[in-house]
Amino acid sequence: MYILRLFVFITLLVSVMTAQTPQFNLMPYPKEIALTGDHFRLTKDFDISIFGIEDTDLQMYASRVLRRLSGRTGLFFPQDYITNASRYDSSDLKIYVERAGKLVINEDESYYLSISSSSVMLKAQTTFGVMRGLETILQMLGSDERGYYLTGARVTDEPRFTWRGLMIDVCRHWMPMDVVKRNIDAMAAVKLNVLHLHLSEDQGFRIESKKYPQLHLLGSDGDYYTQEEIKTIIQYAAARGIRVYPEFDVPGHTTAWFVAFPELASAPGPYKIERNWGVFDPTMNPTIERTYEVLDTLFTEMAALFPDEYFHIGGDENNGKQWNANQDIQKFMKENGIKDNHELQAMFNKRMLKILTRNGKKMIGWDEIFQPELPKDIVIHSWRGVKYLFESARKGYMGILSNGYYIDLIQPAEYHYLNDPAPVDSVLTEEERARILGGEVTSWAELVTPETIDSRIWPRTAAIAERLWSPGTLRDVESMYQRMEYISYQLEELGLLHIKNYDMMLRRLTGYRDFAGLKKFVDILEPVKIYTRHRQGVKYTSYSPYTRVADAARPESMISRRIRKIFEELMAGNTKNAAELKLLLKEVKERQTAVKEILQVSPVLREMQPMSENLTKLAQLGIEAVDIYLSKKKPAKNWHKKVEPVLLEAEKPYGQTEIPFAKTVSEFVHLLIK
Amino acid sequence: MYILRLFVFITLLVSVMTAQTPQFNLMPYPKEIALTGDHFRLTKDFDISIFGIEDTDLQMYASRVLRRLSGRTGLFFPQDYITNASRYDSSDLKIYVERAGKLVINEDESYYLSISSSSVMLKAQTTFGVMRGLETILQMLGSDERGYYLTGARVTDEPRFTWRGLMIDVCRHWMPMDVVKRNIDAMAAVKLNVLHLHLSEDQGFRIESKKYPQLHLLGSDGDYYTQEEIKTIIQYAAARGIRVYPEFDVPGHTTAWFVAFPELASAPGPYKIERNWGVFDPTMNPTIERTYEVLDTLFTEMAALFPDEYFHIGGDENNGKQWNANQDIQKFMKENGIKDNHELQAMFNKRMLKILTRNGKKMIGWDEIFQPELPKDIVIHSWRGVKYLFESARKGYMGILSNGYYIDLIQPAEYHYLNDPAPVDSVLTEEERARILGGEVTSWAELVTPETIDSRIWPRTAAIAERLWSPGTLRDVESMYQRMEYISYQLEELGLLHIKNYDMMLRRLTGYRDFAGLKKFVDILEPVKIYTRHRQGVKYTSYSPYTRVADAARPESMISRRIRKIFEELMAGNTKNAAELKLLLKEVKERQTAVKEILQVSPVLREMQPMSENLTKLAQLGIEAVDIYLSKKKPAKNWHKKVEPVLLEAEKPYGQTEIPFAKTVSEFVHLLIK
Repeated sequence: MYILRLFVFITLLVSVMTAQTPQFNLMPYPKEIALTGDHFRLTKDFDISIFGIEDTDLQMYASRVLRRLSGRTGLFFPQDYITNASRYDSSDLKIYVERAGKLVINEDESYYLSISSSSVMLKAQTTFGVMRGLETILQMLGSDERGYYLTGARVTDEPRFTWRGLMIDVCRHWMPMDVVKRNIDAMAAVKLNVLHLHLSEDQGFRIESKKYPQLHLLGSDGDYYTQEEIKTIIQYAAARGIRVYPEFDVPGHTTAWFVAFPELASAPGPYKIERNWGVFDPTMNPTIERTYEVLDTLFTEMAALFPDEYFHIGGDENNGKQWNANQDIQKFMKENGIKDNHELQAMFNKRMLKILTRNGKKMIGWDEIFQPELPKDIVIHSWRGVKYLFESARKGYMGILSNGYYIDLIQPAEYHYLNDPAPVDSVLTEEERARILGGEVTSWAELVTPETIDSRIWPRTAAIAERLWSPGTLRDVESMYQRMEYISYQLEELGLLHIKNYDMMLRRLTGYRDFAGLKKFVDILEPVKIYTRHRQGVKYTSYSPYTRVADAARPESMISRRIRKIFEELMAGNTKNAAELKLLLKEVKERQTAVKEILQVSPVLREMQPMSENLTKLAQLGIEAVDIYLSKKKPAKNWHKKVEPVLLEAEKPYGQTEIPFAKTVSEFVHLLIK
Repeated sequence: MYILRLFVFITLLVSVMTAQTPQFNLMPYPKEIALTGDHFRLTKDFDISIFGIEDTDLQMYASRVLRRLSGRTGLFFPQDYITNASRYDSSDLKIYVERAGKLVINEDESYYLSISSSSVMLKAQTTFGVMRGLETILQMLGSDERGYYLTGARVTDEPRFTWRGLMIDVCRHWMPMDVVKRNIDAMAAVKLNVLHLHLSEDQGFRIESKKYPQLHLLGSDGDYYTQEEIKTIIQYAAARGIRVYPEFDVPGHTTAWFVAFPELASAPGPYKIERNWGVFDPTMNPTIERTYEVLDTLFTEMAALFPDEYFHIGGDENNGKQWNANQDIQKFMKENGIKDNHELQAMFNKRMLKILTRNGKKMIGWDEIFQPELPKDIVIHSWRGVKYLFESARKGYMGILSNGYYIDLIQPAEYHYLNDPAPVDSVLTEEERARILGGEVTSWAELVTPETIDSRIWPRTAAIAERLWSPGTLRDVESMYQRMEYISYQLEELGLLHIKNYDMMLRRLTGYRDFAGLKKFVDILEPVKIYTRHRQGVKYTSYSPYTRVADAARPESMISRRIRKIFEELMAGNTKNAAELKLLLKEVKERQTAVKEILQVSPVLREMQPMSENLTKLAQLGIEAVDIYLSKKKPAKNWHKKVEPVLLEAEKPYGQTEIPFAKTVSEFVHLLIK
């Protein structure tokens, strides 16, 4: 349980620091916070009153907060539900609110919180502001020998960006209602406010259409949201101040539509639901009226179902192959003076815009939809990068960033955290800056299932939530990691499975044996990054097992991060943590004895055997290298001959996982050899 | 992690035994099983074909089994969904089925399974039989150095009882859809086939009524199933061969109804949703026609919603106070020659029967509904005991048992396991025996929340499932415990949280610190049993925190059970495990050093401090006692003066938990002193 022991160490450290600067456990970090020095002591009589307006969503939100506070402290509070009937001037937490929040962009989500030794006051313009503030209150809970308290402070807070989203791809792997609901709860906990549902793909059409039931009946293997369920999701999110809007990705990414409507495709059918991953050829035919007829009917139906003002039409990754190969389309282009596929898609998009406008919706789409003649209230969703976002902002278009927030690509929280839609030092006019609305975390679902999705989204998404909420000048990575770990544990309470399923998956991998040894091993590893996993001889499909070590392993190993960090310190000439590093490497090495045994008991684990051997050798080599470095002598003459094969081998992935500090050791060693 | 280490020991032992008798991991244990000695080797080409009929539910069930097998083995099977189109004579697992199962009592659920080295064959009369057999196949998975296999065997299996149910009280604490769904999955895994939804109570009316929306709108705090959701539950269960039937508990347990309909009560309103636990006075007025009008309309609506042939009217725990105090009711009784409340309720029940009969339903109700004039197709649901079940069976009535299956009362699995609705040695005629249809596990919800309910229902319900499915002669408690532990881990894969939430709850109790020490402590304890928890000065309500040590602690501590067991062996003169016992007690004692520290860091844990001190002293005393016993000498003269206060104190509960072996040590010590 090394990680745990290490964690205690860090926590105790934080606890000590917390005594002076308790805001360390807040995430997203507020805009302004001033400690008052005293605390509000929680007693079993704690209660909440709401003044100003009567809003059922807010009353229920506050009631849930009361239950969460009661759950954490074990205190038996006297209030059941917070209503107008139970409103007292003597209440411990008094909430003042002016009006109900509206689920639109640029809505006021600011709040002011004051915690003194005698009472707590939370003030906001809108109910959404109150909700954000209530989450901050929950994070202000502390304890000492006298009991539980809320840290005395005055907090003035508001979001930096108005669009702080999470996109869930529910198509490539189906995500049932409970996945969506618990992720909405987690979003609210870190003040995200937009849920983007990616509802149609090559691999599935995931929403009931009453107009064209064949779409979901033939295109989903039975896995889709009924319209009632969608209403439930929308209501559940709205009650937490979160917008929900749909994406129907057209004209590409549409294989699943063509199972029911082969006549809409640009090449003859029949079509089957796609089971593989990649960019596929099937694309809607933009030159026939039937296409627009069906889309018009469907979008009109869906526009009525989703109250949000935005509607996403996708538009990405049309490879153009079916268009190029279709004689009628080529003829149409010639006749209408359309010079390339990009122009053809622009024509298609204009028709989409018309349909949406008629339905009172504003269009949002991926980078590719951008074309100069579009109205200025559309939103460009950038998967290609800040550069493109800036470009459209300069041309007067609003945009949101997802490039750098692809949470399924298993990159470090640090990378996402430092990725800013509008860095404070970027050369943008005030108007241009205002057009950058924020960003969205995208959870693409090739490699996740309902079992693993939480561990891919959380806790790293909390770091992005902070990027989108907190001041742009806040960029302290170490503080972020400390706070993220804390928030991660709090998210668990809401039902998130990002930690809970780890043990289960490891136990299953051992055939229900003791998995403590395996855990010590997997705690060090990380799944391979970006799209590497598709390029290692294993062909994944929608029905592959996502239950192996690569799926159980956390996106970021904290122990490996620490090892990497100290090596980097050494390379910068700072030796103060060298002893800790040697201890860590020794522990990594020693763990492998127990691992050896466990890797043999279970056939599914055998692919990891070379990895354990490599870890043993790499850790040993690392210790030697540190010793050489500290001795300030040159390594022995033939040392490099011995170490090169070890380093080369240690950098190889096994079972689609990698040793996260292999490259760093290699760099360090090569510095020594040089 | 003592428990885990102990578990490895047990598992390895089982694995060795498994080599000869692998059926040890099956639960419920089949009627007949013969090992063939060879194995069917699972390869990455494994596939399934279904012959006989085309049944979508079964195809989906088999597809899920294929995915679960793939998930456990990490093998990339080639089949996506099992359909008629993918049916091959060369398939590895060939399923033969005659007809679709019907969701009625006494339906055929038998199956025959043959696993040879070359193929697997599963044969059943009905699709339900196939589903039961598929779960057995999943439990037959083993592995060795050559890879994964299904143990070669011929299995002939069928249930002993036709009614194998789980009742979930979704009223006292609301249980959202995901709780119900994952529990249905778990039910299917252990071959349970009836889900009984307890839908109305003093604390909530939990289902949408379109006829009387005020019932659910005013009586549920917003927590109810819509009719669409109920249909989803029914369909989800049906696809797993599980019946779903509703209970509307009348005329008592009806406070929540009266919020909307105070005029139906036997005392004037207004009424509020009950927040406390107990038996309450509010009771429907059986002497006014309005009562029957409302019930007729509602039951007619609900009878159409639930396709099952049974409909539960509750009928329990009417304390009669409102009836006694109501002048009009007293007058009515006098005028109609009704001599007591029991007769009055009998009159009420006859009206209920009439309503149900007109709606094509058969009545089921708790013991109290029994009266001689009822038709013979009703079912008596016995919460009072086997005696009453036998009595009604003798009078020609069918019955099911729940007495002894109250899973919320935190009793040992052994107790439930040995509780038989119709013990093999009971004096019943064949006809009488046939009238005992089975039993139902009841999960009452005073002390559980969605967070803890799984840990109260599972894994102990698996033992009851075996009692209701397997031969009545199978009563080996040790084998049951071994197999139950194994099944418990498999249930986790289906999303059950009975293990997963343990760590989360412990971590929350420590304020997100390292909880390893706390776990070692709580692993030894058990929550107090039966209704004791309500009688220790803590007043629980529906909104109390169910997050303390008593809620986190497992219903049964396996380490404490082992300690108790060896003490019992010693008392029977068997000393072979004395050394193990001393080791266990020493470990218990040593654990307390780490615990001390952790109990101080968190205010919510402070109530447990005396318990840790008591454990230290009790373990020390236990070791001394064992030594004295082994020395065959009498204890020192004044020893009893020293030990009495320790024993007395150790038997006291703290924080509503108890030391499960305190009483046993006391007995042992008193034997020595005597």
